[in-house]
Amino acid sequence: MAKELKDLTKRNENYSQWYNELVVKADLAEQSAVRGCMVIKPYGYAIWEKMQRQLDDMFKATGHVNAYFPLLIPKSFLSREAEHVKGFAKECAVVTHYRLKASEDGNSVVVDPEAKLEEELIIRPTSETIIWNTYRNWIHSYRDLPLLINQWANVFRWEMRTRLFLRTAEFLWQEGHTAHATAKEAEEEATRMLNVYADFAENFMSLPVIKGVKSESERFAGAINTYTIEAMMQDGKALQSGTSHFLGQNFAKAFNVQFIDQNNKLDYVWATSWGVSTRLIGALIMAHSDDNGLVLPPKLAPTQVVIIPIYKNEEQLHQIDEKANAIADTLRKMGISVKYDNADNKRPGFKFADYELKGVPVRLVLGARDLANGTIEIMRRDTLEKESVDIDGIENRVKELLDDIQKNMFVKAKTYRDSRIINVDSYDEFKEKIEEGGFLMAHWDGTPETEAKIKEETKATIRCIPFEGDMTPGVDMITGKPSARRVMFARAY
Amino acid sequence: MAKELKDLTKRNENYSQWYNELVVKADLAEQSAVRGCMVIKPYGYAIWEKMQRQLDDMFKATGHVNAYFPLLIPKSFLSREAEHVKGFAKECAVVTHYRLKASEDGNSVVVDPEAKLEEELIIRPTSETIIWNTYRNWIHSYRDLPLLINQWANVFRWEMRTRLFLRTAEFLWQEGHTAHATAKEAEEEATRMLNVYADFAENFMSLPVIKGVKSESERFAGAINTYTIEAMMQDGKALQSGTSHFLGQNFAKAFNVQFIDQNNKLDYVWATSWGVSTRLIGALIMAHSDDNGLVLPPKLAPTQVVIIPIYKNEEQLHQIDEKANAIADTLRKMGISVKYDNADNKRPGFKFADYELKGVPVRLVLGARDLANGTIEIMRRDTLEKESVDIDGIENRVKELLDDIQKNMFVKAKTYRDSRIINVDSYDEFKEKIEEGGFLMAHWDGTPETEAKIKEETKATIRCIPFEGDMTPGVDMITGKPSARRVMFARAY
Repeated sequence: MAKELKDLTKRNENYSQWYNELVVKADLAEQSAVRGCMVIKPYGYAIWEKMQRQLDDMFKATGHVNAYFPLLIPKSFLSREAEHVKGFAKECAVVTHYRLKASEDGNSVVVDPEAKLEEELIIRPTSETIIWNTYRNWIHSYRDLPLLINQWANVFRWEMRTRLFLRTAEFLWQEGHTAHATAKEAEEEATRMLNVYADFAENFMSLPVIKGVKSESERFAGAINTYTIEAMMQDGKALQSGTSHFLGQNFAKAFNVQFIDQNNKLDYVWATSWGVSTRLIGALIMAHSDDNGLVLPPKLAPTQVVIIPIYKNEEQLHQIDEKANAIADTLRKMGISVKYDNADNKRPGFKFADYELKGVPVRLVLGARDLANGTIEIMRRDTLEKESVDIDGIENRVKELLDDIQKNMFVKAKTYRDSRIINVDSYDEFKEKIEEGGFLMAHWDGTPETEAKIKEETKATIRCIPFEGDMTPGVDMITGKPSARRVMFARAY
Repeated sequence: MAKELKDLTKRNENYSQWYNELVVKADLAEQSAVRGCMVIKPYGYAIWEKMQRQLDDMFKATGHVNAYFPLLIPKSFLSREAEHVKGFAKECAVVTHYRLKASEDGNSVVVDPEAKLEEELIIRPTSETIIWNTYRNWIHSYRDLPLLINQWANVFRWEMRTRLFLRTAEFLWQEGHTAHATAKEAEEEATRMLNVYADFAENFMSLPVIKGVKSESERFAGAINTYTIEAMMQDGKALQSGTSHFLGQNFAKAFNVQFIDQNNKLDYVWATSWGVSTRLIGALIMAHSDDNGLVLPPKLAPTQVVIIPIYKNEEQLHQIDEKANAIADTLRKMGISVKYDNADNKRPGFKFADYELKGVPVRLVLGARDLANGTIEIMRRDTLEKESVDIDGIENRVKELLDDIQKNMFVKAKTYRDSRIINVDSYDEFKEKIEEGGFLMAHWDGTPETEAKIKEETKATIRCIPFEGDMTPGVDMITGKPSARRVMFARAY
């Protein structure tokens, strides 16, 4: 581990390489034998489980229930919604056969040509189509609405350039799919869930986000409006961390889902969908971690506290074991996850480096001298500050420190982000500043043409039109045409 | 609902139809637009979530961690283990292409012939191959062992005849895949996990099971030994409810996973795998439910208690609301899930039938007269017995009743099952008795030929060679050859 850590590329040398190495060295994930598909290793999956549990609780608290819909979608379903198919048909995994048979030489298996499907099936890239085809039978009257359903599932998009967590062919996510009697209710739902995502990002991931609406060209394929939370990574690039879509009646019309309203009139149902994925783990790493390894917010850390003994002989270890186990027990009773690592086959220095790499928020070190003095060393992972404190009351001290780390990580990320949000008024300045990263607030004439030109020339996209902020009108930095307000540009993952 | 309930076929009229109708009427699941794939509806999924949470806790308590491996498996991986491919190649969904394109008329999408994969990918029917291919890089020394990993996932097997929950093309499950330094440790692990399954079945599903080992022909493809828990349904048929496999070194050899042991010798790793699936929901329904609908064990019921008010006017409802909400609050604080259904648009009779159909274990009915008398009506779903009791202390009464229902359902199922396990000594008697259902304990000469003949002629299979029970030797009922002991035959789902 100590060796591995020494090998970790520094952020300011090569941020991208630092990320790729860290994901692997910290045992979070790795490439699999299948192109673009990752293996999520136990430590990475434990973070996902923490995220899932919290998000699931938040979805249920807002009235949603879980269900499960098929992995495979008939090919024809994709074409029903005109915009949707454009967005998703390109990158699909297509199932064409349902059987293998022994090869002629008997040494391998080949696709059985006789087992060809009449209609090909697509591995879901997202589930709007199969779900709205199902909702047709579930919704007849306003009494069946709203329908507030979420699904935890794997989805598949055939991405050409993949990166662990950030962009993979297969990924894990949740997708909410709700049905409403009115446009207003659906819009409210889309906003509600965006706020849930923002709450989760800020209060659990310690990740400040900017909420806003996407421009037309960045919208979800098939949506009327896409709302987003955008976070800044440590290289100044944006990472879209969650989206919520107001789908209007597009999918209801595509799948003929109508209901009798309170006035006995037949109308199409209004829809939303919203999702976050294992990409959030990428955001978590990129936003907080440092050259020593992961820095995890306590609320999502699989292990919140590690205790390491320092001893010269068995007798000392015995005495330390007793005290350390007592502290661990008390912490566990307080709902804190603790590991006491008294393994004898690794030296303390090794352990220190390893738990720093893994991002365990609080480290306690207990030595023979500490025992004699009634002290213990406590270190916080976010700042790497350590101090020797009274062993009495250490449990409350740990609890306070965990809370403090959670908050401090948010403040640090927000201070950094805010320092890198700047107003830009000319295209020359824009082209210069975008090279440095950061979020550029600039005036835009509202046309897809200008947006496309900027993307083409600078690789920057409109991340969102923020809900909050400067609402002063101006003129487009390129065309000079009127602009209602500044919008937020950045290069993005 | 009342109408729907009246339509439910009775078990003694047509057990199979009763099951199919009940799954749909109780809103558990339905067929999807994709052949053989089900939609698990929110109420059915809520039962699965309860099962998942409990099993996951039990896996973690026995030292396992979760991870996630790819959905798709390179075709060639399947052929590496000779027995494995025979078992799973026949029924695979095969991905051959990675892109669609617009059709010539522009009205639909077609498979892009240029996007053909070099090697086809299989949707995992089970994950031994992709996981052992990964383990090769994770295991080098005895210090890396044991590796105790579980995965929650969807899997796909192209079944020709499907039934909701019991046999579907796609299903949800967990699959444990562990690696060990010795055969003994792996065997112990396989047994440990079978015991976890049995514990879960008996103490959470209230489902008595018989533990045993499979005959060679019923073994998992690629296993040295398959252990099973077998449960009896109300028609006397068996349902295999969970299996645990000792895989020997078969997959380690197929994927070249070797380790340096404590004596510095290179050896292949020993393996187990074990799984239970959404099939358990089918078992739960078939074992306990009755002609009124579902009967759910309290520990897995999404709603454990429902409270229904009986009132003539708003004022009465107000008074009842107050008392009912107080009871509900207290029950919730005790960790019991409660629904107070004071919806005004359905009559009490409707509600009664609906919650019986849904299998809510305890029903409380509170009327204006009850309030005056200080009483409340309590009904238990398993026996449908109801009585009027003191409203004071009702919460503890409910708690006791839930415990009692949980136990009573087990005792009832066990009494029924035990009454239908019989010794059979001649093949004529066997052929006669098997028509009535039940588990037949018979002598078998241990050959696949005799087993195949019995299956062919009676549709009965050896469910298992039980770990416990009569160990007296005898003679095969057909061939007259020596038999070490009786084995358990039944027709099965």
